[in-house]
Amino acid sequence: MQTNSSPSLNACVFGASGGIGAAFVRRLHAEPDIARIYAGARSTIEAGPKVRPFSFDLSDEVSISEAAQKIGPPDLAIVTTGMLHSADVQPEKSLKMQTPEAYAAAFAVNTIGPALIGKHFLPQLPKDRRSIFAVLSARVGSISENRLGGWHAYRASKAALNMIIRNFAVEMARTHPQAIVVALHPGTVDTELSQPFQRGVAPEKLFTADYAAERMLQVLSELTPEDSGQLFAWDGARIPF
Amino acid sequence: MQTNSSPSLNACVFGASGGIGAAFVRRLHAEPDIARIYAGARSTIEAGPKVRPFSFDLSDEVSISEAAQKIGPPDLAIVTTGMLHSADVQPEKSLKMQTPEAYAAAFAVNTIGPALIGKHFLPQLPKDRRSIFAVLSARVGSISENRLGGWHAYRASKAALNMIIRNFAVEMARTHPQAIVVALHPGTVDTELSQPFQRGVAPEKLFTADYAAERMLQVLSELTPEDSGQLFAWDGARIPF
Repeated sequence: MQTNSSPSLNACVFGASGGIGAAFVRRLHAEPDIARIYAGARSTIEAGPKVRPFSFDLSDEVSISEAAQKIGPPDLAIVTTGMLHSADVQPEKSLKMQTPEAYAAAFAVNTIGPALIGKHFLPQLPKDRRSIFAVLSARVGSISENRLGGWHAYRASKAALNMIIRNFAVEMARTHPQAIVVALHPGTVDTELSQPFQRGVAPEKLFTADYAAERMLQVLSELTPEDSGQLFAWDGARIPF
Repeated sequence: MQTNSSPSLNACVFGASGGIGAAFVRRLHAEPDIARIYAGARSTIEAGPKVRPFSFDLSDEVSISEAAQKIGPPDLAIVTTGMLHSADVQPEKSLKMQTPEAYAAAFAVNTIGPALIGKHFLPQLPKDRRSIFAVLSARVGSISENRLGGWHAYRASKAALNMIIRNFAVEMARTHPQAIVVALHPGTVDTELSQPFQRGVAPEKLFTADYAAERMLQVLSELTPEDSGQLFAWDGARIPF
């Protein structure tokens, strides 16, 4: 983030109990210009010198709007919530495995939830200075780069999320010209989400959550409003939709 | 489609009671090489010399799988179902208008429904000859071309649909090398879907459903399996995702 003489920036992390979300909170804690980190999760998050926990539930819009009222204008908001598999839902290996339930669950968590966070937090972004709203998307949400197939519901939900981020960027450019709204691809990170799918990943390409968070914060620090509405990888490369 | 000495091809239109769906049935009726047109809708469709009505409901997977068993291998399947607005849901003009209900409704009709049709009909496509599975998507479902914003749920549902079509194309290429799976942009067509949004459309750009269906059938007739997994406009131009 910008370097200031005293810490003055407010950050807000959604999904702060997850692997990458918790890493963002840790990394932001070490940033000298960050004054406060609002750390949101369904469960309880530990408070810290700079960390202010709050609770929200993606499926409960009121909890999101109440959090927005309580927190006020964030300089940096990062949405790290996401679901690839659950006890009930395994990613599809074939079109025959598609189910309406898996689709609905993926859209609810990966698309609609972040959309509602944007609905309530984007209007809060400061108008007089640079601000960032970033969501974790995924390279597998790129339609044009999809050459493997599979993971139907997850891929579709991330493509839909990328569209919403583009929509947000278009609208925010009219009212908040210094706002940057982007989607991020964290790489393959050693978390619960990727755990069943790590076998084919080369060790040097399987990141710790802390490394991924560090790299993504570096990418965000270099973005300008002209980059708004795009999908960026952990290394700063733009991924086509 | 291919020209044969006697009509031998089976077509299948989903959403045959809608403006564009009914136009596809009419146009296909006039094609000399089409033997039968299976015309599917929730309501009852009139039978014709070549038209075999069937009923299905996008929200009822059993009705889709039963239709697939009854109809058998189609040479051409066109999914024309889709929703932009309803009595309850108006397309969003601003991010503040987003609701989880509108998102869920758009994904159910525009994304999950066509995905389930693909689940049950794609495995039926003939393996020994050219076949086509096409869905109506929309230019506003292109993320990279989105410079206007708005219509959040509709845009997101069509971007998600484009991803699923890409997934279908990848998978079908392995088992059905002559199959062509594509998304289509019909242009702005004078139907119930576009009715509230026609004011800004130049008269020469507002198509009749028959004209749109004719142009899209022309586009489909010229595609090859190398085009599978892409989004094509009514004039044959490829639209980036």
